[in-house]
Amino acid sequence: MPRISESTVRRLSHYYRVLEEVAAEGQKLISSHLLAEREGITSAQVRKDLSYFGSFGRRGLGYQVDHLRTEIRGILGLDRRWRVAVVGAGHIGSALMAYRGFASQGFDVVAVFDSSPARVGQSLGELTIRHLDTLTREDAIDMAVISTPVRAAQEVADVLAAAGVRGILNFAPRKLKAPAEVTVRAVDMTMEFESLSFSLSQARPGSRRRAAD
Amino acid sequence: MPRISESTVRRLSHYYRVLEEVAAEGQKLISSHLLAEREGITSAQVRKDLSYFGSFGRRGLGYQVDHLRTEIRGILGLDRRWRVAVVGAGHIGSALMAYRGFASQGFDVVAVFDSSPARVGQSLGELTIRHLDTLTREDAIDMAVISTPVRAAQEVADVLAAAGVRGILNFAPRKLKAPAEVTVRAVDMTMEFESLSFSLSQARPGSRRRAAD
Repeated sequence: MPRISESTVRRLSHYYRVLEEVAAEGQKLISSHLLAEREGITSAQVRKDLSYFGSFGRRGLGYQVDHLRTEIRGILGLDRRWRVAVVGAGHIGSALMAYRGFASQGFDVVAVFDSSPARVGQSLGELTIRHLDTLTREDAIDMAVISTPVRAAQEVADVLAAAGVRGILNFAPRKLKAPAEVTVRAVDMTMEFESLSFSLSQARPGSRRRAAD
Repeated sequence: MPRISESTVRRLSHYYRVLEEVAAEGQKLISSHLLAEREGITSAQVRKDLSYFGSFGRRGLGYQVDHLRTEIRGILGLDRRWRVAVVGAGHIGSALMAYRGFASQGFDVVAVFDSSPARVGQSLGELTIRHLDTLTREDAIDMAVISTPVRAAQEVADVLAAAGVRGILNFAPRKLKAPAEVTVRAVDMTMEFESLSFSLSQARPGSRRRAAD
């Protein structure tokens, strides 16, 4: 299989959501055109994305919703359960713990860690906050969220990698170093705002770009 | 200017961060190769991205760090200040309010709204939580974060659009309808996890893909 870009994986997630919606509505077939329309991209892009993983559609008929949904589910690794830890029990960590959407997609938050003596031993949802020092390979954590202050993030990443964690979702605004076998994804809230300010700047009459003409 | 994809805008944000870093280190010139290396993409991609906005580099010399940084700053709309509102003063809203990185990039959180009588009137950071009913065009909000429960999200989006808000960052797991002049970006945490589970599934020996051979 060729290397799949992060953008392609994001689109697969989108397709998966659309397929879940139309399946819930009882629809059996879906065209690449409709998949594209719902996401605001071209149907050629949809066919290209899906062709990476084998040929699921039939010309003129479209894709079988159930079959395609099952395939993408497998491709995204959603046909199994994942053990997730949250490190950092502040606002972001608490927000993630409170969000119910993860479990339904196979992501079970099974442990929460902090290093503050005021927090360790407290309850968060159904879990008791543990000190990060107590994390071992026996916890069998697949992926972890780092929602600690930025100064602690690299040290936490090192501890996680040493405990066999192979996926990290990093909310701390710092680029983390990790061994090759560990996948790190950064969630950068400022970047989301920048995407908005870009759009608003381009559209606004009298904006900098316009004034520079 | 051609239509710029969301992926390109994301890469511009990345380049901007690299440029800020190397500027802080006193570096005057940077090659497309180095910009690419720091982001794990090809230097051809970097040159293509930057070519959309005019020719900033010189063959063999690279890009002037200060000049390129100023240009991207303008392109991303970071050469002005943006008035931001947070709607929903729960965990996510509180986490965003507590994050100090926004103001340094020009995003000023100037108002926080909720509809819960228990929260309205309380302090959050330096702001007092207001009822969403009190939002008017006079608040001159440029962009808003929706961090309410999912059932309230669409109604909040309607209120925001009516008050002249032109950018929405939506944390609620529901696709929002908005007028054409309003840009909506969704932050989907489950999608971030799926990007990790995809990577871990592809790499893992004995994974579904392997087992299916």
